[in-house]
Amino acid sequence: MRVLVLGGSGFIGSHVVDQLLAADVKVRVFDRGPERYREKLPGVEYLFGDFRDSVAVIEALADCDVVLHLVTATVPGTAAMDPLADVRDNLLPTIALLEGMVKVKVPRLVYLSSGGTVYGVPEAVPTPENHPLRPINSYGIVKVAIENYVTMYGREHGISTVIIRPSNPYGPRQGHTGLQGIIGTFLNRILNDEAIQIWGDGSVVRDYIYVEDVARLCCRAAFGDRPGVYNAGSGSGLSVNEIVEALRDVTGKDIQPTYLPGRAIDVPRSVLDISQARAEFDWEPVVASREGIDLTWKWMREL
Amino acid sequence: MRVLVLGGSGFIGSHVVDQLLAADVKVRVFDRGPERYREKLPGVEYLFGDFRDSVAVIEALADCDVVLHLVTATVPGTAAMDPLADVRDNLLPTIALLEGMVKVKVPRLVYLSSGGTVYGVPEAVPTPENHPLRPINSYGIVKVAIENYVTMYGREHGISTVIIRPSNPYGPRQGHTGLQGIIGTFLNRILNDEAIQIWGDGSVVRDYIYVEDVARLCCRAAFGDRPGVYNAGSGSGLSVNEIVEALRDVTGKDIQPTYLPGRAIDVPRSVLDISQARAEFDWEPVVASREGIDLTWKWMREL
Repeated sequence: MRVLVLGGSGFIGSHVVDQLLAADVKVRVFDRGPERYREKLPGVEYLFGDFRDSVAVIEALADCDVVLHLVTATVPGTAAMDPLADVRDNLLPTIALLEGMVKVKVPRLVYLSSGGTVYGVPEAVPTPENHPLRPINSYGIVKVAIENYVTMYGREHGISTVIIRPSNPYGPRQGHTGLQGIIGTFLNRILNDEAIQIWGDGSVVRDYIYVEDVARLCCRAAFGDRPGVYNAGSGSGLSVNEIVEALRDVTGKDIQPTYLPGRAIDVPRSVLDISQARAEFDWEPVVASREGIDLTWKWMREL
Repeated sequence: MRVLVLGGSGFIGSHVVDQLLAADVKVRVFDRGPERYREKLPGVEYLFGDFRDSVAVIEALADCDVVLHLVTATVPGTAAMDPLADVRDNLLPTIALLEGMVKVKVPRLVYLSSGGTVYGVPEAVPTPENHPLRPINSYGIVKVAIENYVTMYGREHGISTVIIRPSNPYGPRQGHTGLQGIIGTFLNRILNDEAIQIWGDGSVVRDYIYVEDVARLCCRAAFGDRPGVYNAGSGSGLSVNEIVEALRDVTGKDIQPTYLPGRAIDVPRSVLDISQARAEFDWEPVVASREGIDLTWKWMREL
């Protein structure tokens, strides 16, 4: 069995690759370049190229049994700055990928969407997969469009498709430039003795999931044959203030954040209902938040 | 007051322009070229250009109080043939339009979406506007993405936006190449003594609305200041077989259709709930199906 991991050098992708290697399958990574924090891994076939280069992507599909599509050219913050680029660099190349999968006859696709943005302001918390999709930012709008195309190509061309909607993943190898996840960003600022700023009053609730738990669901989905849409969350929510408290405990530092005005981009409360993934893939998040933050802190101090 | 009608030379656009002229406002049309079935109208300012040319579109925005966006580069059939072009030619230029409206400070936008495709297979008939959006074809997927961007730009940049979701419009000046609406297509085949073919058993139910009724809602929305999303349908559904019966009555011809296998692209039943447009715009469809088909038949015979 050969698995193609699009975006395999990225944050979640690198953990997916680790688990695929442990499962002893052939792993091909397509990404812009090598991982940021590690050397090339033995046993992985690397293809470096641009996801927008449809010929390169189609070449990468050869002899693959499953595609794990984890590429995202944007994060919510950058997508908001340039919605045109968001569509051009994420949606268009994904349609080209789907066209390529039809031509090359790759039978299965796992697509990593976004449980934190596709639902918009949730009417029900925890939010189940069949909740209406009413995204309020460009990142979520594009994710919804991609999901719709994935499902359409699956139905029309007999590709077995899985969509995974992670909540807020965090953990080792996440970028910490301030654009992705607060846990990595805040830990990095604590490490550098920099002040921590919070948008709003810290009451915004998110569902933080350790990256290895997300990666494990991706791999189970890749190895399975069941199609569908599955949330991947921790099963519970933490406020930003609770996260700060956990960071104090883990780092032993007396953190005193500054509170800034809230952002329109923030959904007030987002916690995912993960009963579908539990039932269908016998999957369970196993790393609790304190443990996950501790592992991330350890990784960051050893960088 | 100056109204810019993007797609003002098209089927629905031409009727919108008629009604705007009757209401004595300044009308600017932006389209690829003049109308197909009529000469240029006196009193209309025509700008001919490509909707994908964002500079031309931004120039067209100058000194406008309202934009009516009725451009669609595809219909459901052609969108399915080339989803990449569907995104490139409809979604990307609409985002550029929204960016342009922010820069030029045009305060109001009316966007013509698609009530027949955005809901997918409806869970409730008649379908209300807050029904989940689960489009099953490319045309609907792109319409949903555009709607989401329209709403997002409206919220983030203070543009007052109205989205109108027409069911199945028909009437004079509709193309009748077989790609758009069955009423025009069938009438044209009857006129030319050609056989009529029906996909499926003729039980597919649609909500056919006379084009002038849709145009009237577009104009009320353009003149109003209320934002929101509004279905535009007839309030009831007709099966393809009922349409054929109406065509027999109107044309006096003994039509014997051939039945072909059904298409995956067809939602089995689509009728819109129009109570919102009734309540908010004091709007009501006034042309019954028999009368509308008769008006369309008369127009076609005089071509």
